[in-house]
Amino acid sequence: MPLPHLTQAHAPLTREVEVMNQHGLRESIFIPAERDLTVYVDKRELVTLMTLGGHPEWLVLGYLLNQRLVASVDDIESITVDWDVGAASVKTRHGIHRIEDRTAHKVVTTGCGQGSVFGHLMDDVDSIRLPPDAVLRQSSLYDIVNTIRLRDTTYKVAGSVHACALFVGGKLQFFVEDVGRHNAVDTIAGWMAINEAPTLHRSRGSLPPEGADPAWGGPAPDRPSGLPAGERVFYTTGRLTSEMVIKSAQMGVPVVISRSGITQMGLEVAQRVGLCAIGRATHMRFLCYSHPQRIVFDAVPKPLGVAPVAAVA
Amino acid sequence: MPLPHLTQAHAPLTREVEVMNQHGLRESIFIPAERDLTVYVDKRELVTLMTLGGHPEWLVLGYLLNQRLVASVDDIESITVDWDVGAASVKTRHGIHRIEDRTAHKVVTTGCGQGSVFGHLMDDVDSIRLPPDAVLRQSSLYDIVNTIRLRDTTYKVAGSVHACALFVGGKLQFFVEDVGRHNAVDTIAGWMAINEAPTLHRSRGSLPPEGADPAWGGPAPDRPSGLPAGERVFYTTGRLTSEMVIKSAQMGVPVVISRSGITQMGLEVAQRVGLCAIGRATHMRFLCYSHPQRIVFDAVPKPLGVAPVAAVA
Repeated sequence: MPLPHLTQAHAPLTREVEVMNQHGLRESIFIPAERDLTVYVDKRELVTLMTLGGHPEWLVLGYLLNQRLVASVDDIESITVDWDVGAASVKTRHGIHRIEDRTAHKVVTTGCGQGSVFGHLMDDVDSIRLPPDAVLRQSSLYDIVNTIRLRDTTYKVAGSVHACALFVGGKLQFFVEDVGRHNAVDTIAGWMAINEAPTLHRSRGSLPPEGADPAWGGPAPDRPSGLPAGERVFYTTGRLTSEMVIKSAQMGVPVVISRSGITQMGLEVAQRVGLCAIGRATHMRFLCYSHPQRIVFDAVPKPLGVAPVAAVA
Repeated sequence: MPLPHLTQAHAPLTREVEVMNQHGLRESIFIPAERDLTVYVDKRELVTLMTLGGHPEWLVLGYLLNQRLVASVDDIESITVDWDVGAASVKTRHGIHRIEDRTAHKVVTTGCGQGSVFGHLMDDVDSIRLPPDAVLRQSSLYDIVNTIRLRDTTYKVAGSVHACALFVGGKLQFFVEDVGRHNAVDTIAGWMAINEAPTLHRSRGSLPPEGADPAWGGPAPDRPSGLPAGERVFYTTGRLTSEMVIKSAQMGVPVVISRSGITQMGLEVAQRVGLCAIGRATHMRFLCYSHPQRIVFDAVPKPLGVAPVAAVA
């Protein structure tokens, strides 16, 4: 089955505004864009997402997948985003079965807002099987944190956005920022779904421009058979809440790294599904909240004031 | 009409957990609690909120008010929270008219998650009238930032929570933290609704314990006729998204201060309703994004490397 047809709608990610500072002086700064995108599924209004607008098609696809409204990309024929009217029109191949029922149960999650999750997200948790042998080398963790640190981002220009990134085998595959971090993770899910699809799919559909930055989000060229689950690492600037951890697990990611911390339910879910949750990751520091056996300590920092010691494997 | 009867359910706000650090060593830290609270209105399941659990009754009341499901505290007979079963049972006096219709329209907002807002939150915006003459003195702004900075908080112990606070006339009235900042602002709305009620109400209902910290959230004793709208200032550690600004405006608050920044839609709403939105407020610095005429610059910091100058009124 061919990949769904996705538009590539673009819109500016920042806006310059005039503010007044503590001296009573005017200055110009950038703030992140934020726009509403109303999602229609087979002409039926489903939801309005507030987004930065970086990758709206993948956002919508990932949203539908993460909400379990569609099972795979094969269910989608096309996603057409038109910023002039703030609408994403989703055409499914066979409709969504019992959509009314499945959008009726509301869980308002932490986010750091009130995330709406249709359906019983937690119901899935016990069916998730993450690769038991997947590990992350400490040296690779440091590389990942550094890669994010060096990147040009909307955050550096305008602040007030969250970033998520997917690394496979230590290499950045896809990076996205959004005003809502759940949007960011949904966008990654959408991108992954396209890239998880068998090679056959890739012969058409929405491919990246020639010579595009790999992190732009095209299919990883050297991984025609998808993204090896055991080598996936998900990075987020946001907190590891339950919803964040569940979504990561649903995407088959065994290791999650956050610049921020974790909440109690995030931790409980991570422990339950066998996910290695790492937080407070900055420079050489981090805390592993769950399943530390997935970390290979090959780059233990030297204790302060002590002569260098060999790294411990 | 008497105030609604609210329980005062308590639960620990933090939990000690064992983590592994970058040296491969185990250490104990605290993380914020996060628990699910399923809200039943007249025995009908409405929504599940994920919350730290500091003030669940005010959270539920504020949620119902901010979602426009009830118009005032007078509509509520009681809110009973039982953490053993994670349930908040709301008893209304006359039911909620057309509750099915009013919870059907979903807007997934930025939060930094996907906030579910039932109803057409934005529809209200143009009917909001904030006090035109309300101002904030710069010196008062600095006092507010400093009051927050010095406070003992769950954030200082466990991180990963957002705080909101209501100041009236420069004095802290109520402070709350939650894993979701929309929960925090809803909790403030709930607290305000009780305190906005006419004095008669206060003769019974849920009053604070004797000698309670004013910021515990009892009615402000020296303000029997409510909280003067012109002197209200709302503080949040979170970003000023559209939903945050709308909720503040709905609560009649003309000035909002954030430690973080603003998003485009947050700014647009603030400009539209005449709300003075201040962000990046730390120590002596801040940026005013909208309606700077509400700031009285009575404490302009001295320029660096220049002899002290008199404060400019």
